Amino acid sequence: MSLSNQQLKTLQAYRQKKFRREDDVFVAETPKVVEMLLAAPLNLRALYALPDYAETVAGRFPSCAPLLQTVSEKELTRISGLTSPQHVFGVWAQPHRRLAPGEAFKGLSLVLDGLQDPGNLGTIIRIADWFGIDRLICSEDTADAFQPKCVQASMGAVAHLPVYYMDLARAASEAPDGFPFYGTFLEGENLFAQPLTATDAWYCIGNESHGIRPATRALINRKIHIPTFSPATAPDRPHAAESLNAAVAAGILCARIRA
Amino acid sequence: MSLSNQQLKTLQAYRQKKFRREDDVFVAETPKVVEMLLAAPLNLRALYALPDYAETVAGRFPSCAPLLQTVSEKELTRISGLTSPQHVFGVWAQPHRRLAPGEAFKGLSLVLDGLQDPGNLGTIIRIADWFGIDRLICSEDTADAFQPKCVQASMGAVAHLPVYYMDLARAASEAPDGFPFYGTFLEGENLFAQPLTATDAWYCIGNESHGIRPATRALINRKIHIPTFSPATAPDRPHAAESLNAAVAAGILCARIRA
Repeated sequence: MSLSNQQLKTLQAYRQKKFRREDDVFVAETPKVVEMLLAAPLNLRALYALPDYAETVAGRFPSCAPLLQTVSEKELTRISGLTSPQHVFGVWAQPHRRLAPGEAFKGLSLVLDGLQDPGNLGTIIRIADWFGIDRLICSEDTADAFQPKCVQASMGAVAHLPVYYMDLARAASEAPDGFPFYGTFLEGENLFAQPLTATDAWYCIGNESHGIRPATRALINRKIHIPTFSPATAPDRPHAAESLNAAVAAGILCARIRA
Repeated sequence: MSLSNQQLKTLQAYRQKKFRREDDVFVAETPKVVEMLLAAPLNLRALYALPDYAETVAGRFPSCAPLLQTVSEKELTRISGLTSPQHVFGVWAQPHRRLAPGEAFKGLSLVLDGLQDPGNLGTIIRIADWFGIDRLICSEDTADAFQPKCVQASMGAVAHLPVYYMDLARAASEAPDGFPFYGTFLEGENLFAQPLTATDAWYCIGNESHGIRPATRALINRKIHIPTFSPATAPDRPHAAESLNAAVAAGILCARIRA
């Protein structure tokens, strides 16, 4: 069996948000991520695999067999967005989740304010899933959780963890009085010197370069900070790092909430 | 002023380890990273900047002026290894640090066993610097700390934090009796349920896919684990993430050592 030129073109076009949105789909690659997604309650649209792996995946997930098409290495290379394609490429219907009124303030939410890098976003989704965070609430200009780089970096966790996009100021305005909204700031209090709310709370992570924007900052009522332990005063080793990577900061924050 | 073809070729060749090694140099880009390196005790070999930024950087770091050459946007694009070149490209002599006998067991070391991704390595260097870890001790097959992607991901921290490559088994064989050598394993003890040594210790992070290899595992006397809090049992949300990204795990580990 081989792919038509039309199929090749359609699958390549899914690298662009515009075409994924038109067909309301997202794509994922590599056996590890694809199998994570096949195990989740998602609607598979099509699966393209090299002959050896096609047999393996059909054995593990018999229900995908009718949507499975074998492809050659050459075809896989043409549809893949990876430098080194790995056995399989899948297309799923993009899930549409709706946040019920008031649900945003139940349990723990990570709030992303303009996070731009899809790799960071995917890594944060993976972290949030690991630490049992209930959802991600993203400003409208945050990176798209279903773009291929994010799906790959999340290792498939994007299938499980609900991610919502909204106007943060409008959403926060509906919070109950005194609802804890944490954010990380240079002048915040030492994260390790206080217990963090592990029941109902929002925790905000900002943009990689500019941090949390002023409008969001005004909504935050608990400012925290991950302190450095760098021997900044040693003359031969001036303080190098100015900050931590956004995903690493999210990991330390989530671990601290749970520890 | 413009670059000769020979200069262009030489600078492009520095994307490859072979040519960096021949000239004993490493390269870095973007104002943020370049300025971090210019502030560190390193030997600058050459600096190539767009006219506007050339003036800025010469003002901030007057000692770099004799080694500074202005280039056009077109030239910068040709020498840059980035998708979006940013104002400046620098070449430094690669530092060669020697570990004095016994020094490996003084203070805190992160030990990397076959870590492959240069982005992860750079992020770990940035984390280690932030948390005042004394050094990185890497197996010989760990990624090169001075490759461009790692230098960029470290945000320049590679200028400060000593990174050594060695045979881990041979190095560990010289440890004092009972020296704490921690490693993360699925069956390890809960990281949050015990205090971690913050004086002299080794902490091991393994390869992204295969973890810590058996030979290294045999040297480790304290097995730990970052527990998950994912509601794995909920039928509509089976446990997705199998693990955390290696750099995120290193961040949580370092934060826990210090907290």
